[in-house]
Formats: sequence, C-alpha cells, structure tokens
Amino acid sequence: MYPMFRFESIQRVTFDDLDPYNVVNNSRYFTYFERGRVDYLREIGLISGSAGDLEKIDVAVVENYCSYRSPAYFDNVLNVYLRISYIKRTSLQFQYIINRNEDKKLIALGYTNLVRVHFPELKPRSFDNDFKEKVRNYEKGNLGKMTGIPDVK
Amino acid sequence: MYPMFRFESIQRVTFDDLDPYNVVNNSRYFTYFERGRVDYLREIGLISGSAGDLEKIDVAVVENYCSYRSPAYFDNVLNVYLRISYIKRTSLQFQYIINRNEDKKLIALGYTNLVRVHFPELKPRSFDNDFKEKVRNYEKGNLGKMTGIPDVK
Amino acid sequence: MYPMFRFESIQRVTFDDLDPYNVVNNSRYFTYFERGRVDYLREIGLISGSAGDLEKIDVAVVENYCSYRSPAYFDNVLNVYLRISYIKRTSLQFQYIINRNEDKKLIALGYTNLVRVHFPELKPRSFDNDFKEKVRNYEKGNLGKMTGIPDVK
Amino acid sequence: MYPMFRFESIQRVTFDDLDPYNVVNNSRYFTYFERGRVDYLREIGLISGSAGDLEKIDVAVVENYCSYRSPAYFDNVLNVYLRISYIKRTSLQFQYIINRNEDKKLIALGYTNLVRVHFPELKPRSFDNDFKEKVRNYEKGNLGKMTGIPDVK
Repeated sequence: MYPMFRFESIQRVTFDDLDPYNVVNNSRYFTYFERGRVDYLREIGLISGSAGDLEKIDVAVVENYCSYRSPAYFDNVLNVYLRISYIKRTSLQFQYIINRNEDKKLIALGYTNLVRVHFPELKPRSFDNDFKEKVRNYEKGNLGKMTGIPDVK
Repeated sequence: MYPMFRFESIQRVTFDDLDPYNVVNNSRYFTYFERGRVDYLREIGLISGSAGDLEKIDVAVVENYCSYRSPAYFDNVLNVYLRISYIKRTSLQFQYIINRNEDKKLIALGYTNLVRVHFPELKPRSFDNDFKEKVRNYEKGNLGKMTGIPDVK
Repeated sequence: MYPMFRFESIQRVTFDDLDPYNVVNNSRYFTYFERGRVDYLREIGLISGSAGDLEKIDVAVVENYCSYRSPAYFDNVLNVYLRISYIKRTSLQFQYIINRNEDKKLIALGYTNLVRVHFPELKPRSFDNDFKEKVRNYEKGNLGKMTGIPDVK
Repeated sequence: MYPMFRFESIQRVTFDDLDPYNVVNNSRYFTYFERGRVDYLREIGLISGSAGDLEKIDVAVVENYCSYRSPAYFDNVLNVYLRISYIKRTSLQFQYIINRNEDKKLIALGYTNLVRVHFPELKPRSFDNDFKEKVRNYEKGNLGKMTGIPDVK
C-alpha cells in the first residue's frame, strides 16, 4: 500500500489495549510501535527468538511521536507498516503507518528516533556492520528519504 | 496435548510483557488468560470482531488463580490451552494450561471464576440460552469435570 | 523551577514501569503524561473523584510527543511539571517537563494535543465556559506562549 | 482496621488501570499487590530507592490468587493492607486486603507465594538473616498464623 514501507506487522487490538472510552488508549500505540520494531528486526534476521536477542537490540529511544487519525476498536486487526528511514553511525529512525485491516482506514502515523547504547551506562556506540548491511539490503535506496512524520498525502 | 482442553490460543511474548528480570511479569499471565478467553469466545461464535462484542461479554471476574511453573522469555511462543470447566445459571469457570511451544515445557496453570452481570450496576444475570448451548456443544461431556486448578499429573 | 509551569504531579517509578533494561519503558512516559493531566484537572477543580468524572474529561488525543533526555530508574520520584499552553474552542495543548526529584536531572520533555469530543462518535465539540475559565484563571497570561516542545534552555 | 495487617500501601486508581467497563481491570490487582510488596520492603528497611534495590528483591512468584469483592472506580483511593504471613528458608507468603478509602468497602483479597532465587538461572536460595530478622521484627508473633486467603470476619 505504501511503496516505501516494505514491512508490515499484523497486530490485533486486545481487550487490555482499551480504555474506558472503548478505544485503544493513546499510550498503547507506542507499544504497537515497539512490537513492530521487534517484528521488523526478526524479519531482517537480526533477532531469532533466542536468549541473546535482548543484548542485540540494545537501543534507547530518544524521541517518540504519534499522530492519531482515527480510533481503533476492540478486536480490530491493524496493519502496522514500518520502515527504517535513516541509519547513521550510532542512531536510526523508524517510521510507522497504522491502518485498520478491515476498511483500510488510516489510524495513526508516527516515528521513533533511537540510539545504540551500552547498557547500563547508556553510552552511545556504533551499530555493527552486519546490522547496517542488513538494514541497507532491506530498505535499499530509500534510506535517507522522507524522514520524520510519514507523508501519506 | 490435554484431551479435555480442545481450544488453544497462540500468544507470543512481547517486549512489554517482560520485567527487569527478563521474564514475563507475574501479572501479565492474567492478561494472557483474558486474551485467551476472548479467543475462545470468538472460536465458539460468541463474538465476531464487531462493535457490539463488548456488550456480549459482560462478565465480571470473581476469582483469579495462577501457579507459575517455569519462566517465559522474550519472543517465546506460548500455547495457552483453555476450557470452560463448568457453566451455571449466572457463573462459569475458565481453566488454563500454558506451555512454551518450542520445548513443550509447562509454564503456568490457572483458573478464573466469572459471573455474568449488568454493567454498570454489576447485578448478576443469567447467561442467554444461545451462550450456554454454544459452550455445551463445544465442551461436550466434560463440563463439570476437573474444576479449579488443572490437573496435569 | 520552571516559571511557566505552575503545576507539578509527583509520580514514583514502580516496578511495572520498568523494562528488561532496568529503565522506565519509553511508552510509559505517555501514561505519566496522562496521569499528570488528571492531577492537573483535579487541581483546578474540574474533576473531583466522583462517578461523573470520566464524562467530564471527554477529550481525545490528537498528537503525542516525547523527548527522552536521561533514563529513570526503579523507585525514582519524578516531578512531572505540567501546563496548558493554549486552549481554543475545541482543542488544547498540555506540555510536560519531567525531572528526577533526587538530583533534579532532566528526564523527559513532551506535549500532547487534545480535542474535546462527543463519545462514542468522536465529533469535536466546544469546551464549556466553566472549563475555559478555570484554565485561564490558573494559567493566567501564559496561555498561547511557548507551545510545542518545552524550551528548557 | 485489621489487627494482623500492620502495613498499608495507599494507591490511587489511575485512568490506565481501567478497562472498558469503567472498573479496574482484574489483572491490575496483581500490579497493586506487587507495588504493595515494594512499599512493604521499603517500610521495613530492605530497599532504599538506590541502584542495588532490584538485586535485593530477587524473588520469583510461585502462586498468585485474588478474590474480587467489589469493583474499584476511577480516582478511588485504595488502602492495600499487607502482611507477610510466613517466611521459611527460601520462601514466603504475602497476604492482601484492599479497601476503598472513602467508604471502607472491601474491594479484594489475595495472597502471593514467592521463592527467593538466583537470577537468571532461577535456582532457589536462602533469605539472608538480615532479611528474615527484619520481617520477624515487623510481623512479631503473627508469622505462621492465618495463611492463604485472608479471613476478614
């Protein structure tokens, strides 16, 4: 649906995502983003469901943004489209577009800026070459284009 | 795997389920139970992903129990086996057995007692005949057997 | 500490706020913001701990932003400074500055744009005069100044 | 109010605790229990808000139980009464009684069985003498009496 967004994480709205207004709570979208990032890293081969995965994704969130376009409801299936829009020596950005699967309605847009760090001291450090190569192979020529809030026309 | 448990809800451990000890937090199992109940009700045709679903599952939790047998870790795929062990005029019980898919290790056991109520006053009320029939058709002759903590030998 | 931020919500980091990196998870800051907004509304007399409160705060989040400056740890006491930076006919903005109480270290900055709506149809509607007056009395001459990301020098 | 429960953790119901039925979600009570345990350990001098606290409370939950007596609502102030009902070489039990502060209504009862472990291998290990002594000094002669579901009559 969105040519620059090659990856899609399917997430179903669960009862615990809802607030008293019967819609997905605003804070929960940042959890959808985070789960999407994990799915993306699994897709490009950077994590594998094994014990060492948490060490491999040692990144810290620096900035988070979400624009809410339409509410999501109980049991909705959501298409969370993700891309890495840039990767530098120690930092990268994820962008998100969330649609409801049933009616393709736009639900939310967002982005996250992350830095790679040493835990627990949180000193920035470089991404491995393997990591950067896998991202470049996946995102191809789109890295560096359209950063920040995704432009959905 | 467990003859009396005909239904299985597949749930993957997400990053937000973990606590600082890198295991699924104890409270999160009750969310797995709740998501499993929704999946079960969808399976037997009682909810359908539509707007009126929340009204149809107007039950209140009366008792909750979990026995933790082995920790679950990041990105584990869990098999949450569920059954309704009894259904009375206004109350029912769900039982749960959770295994890790990869090595079939037993992770947790539990049960939940629920009553059907009118919200917001929370007065008990009878289950519809349609509801009870669907449960009976699904659980067949096992209703009323082995209630409380599931017996896994 | 911040002349334009008259209100402060004290929030302690609890175990359930932490992720496997032993820091407050990025999504949790938006819950701190939300709890802060409730505390602010209680302070200026718009909610009172009674049954009708949820109807009175019928606003929907339109945009959410957080800049993370330093991690927060287990059992830290946080000072969440809040202000309403503008209020229009149907919309308003909250701004946040979060410090750790112990060492006054800057932890995070953020803002939220909200619109008042009718639930469940989510049609925008005007704030009551009483609501706007209470906000104006509290924020005095600062409404409309320094919107968006708080400027902390 | 409850002679054997010397300690009380005050917790306010926040918006994020609520589910679509406008009541505190059933899973959230186990978070209240967990926060209460932290408050109890701070009270008896076992944690102090410093970096090493997480290592000191290296216990794993073995069993969790909650009986829900009356719903809790938005902005309710809850009195979470806690006691340690027994402590053995490697295990202990916490009991809970939750009341609403405003009308003293009984909201929930529960207990948690925990074992002290080495993380991450989760092998049981003995509590330090200092730990056991502090618990004994606090609970005095009540240790070993009335274990399991608290008897509130």
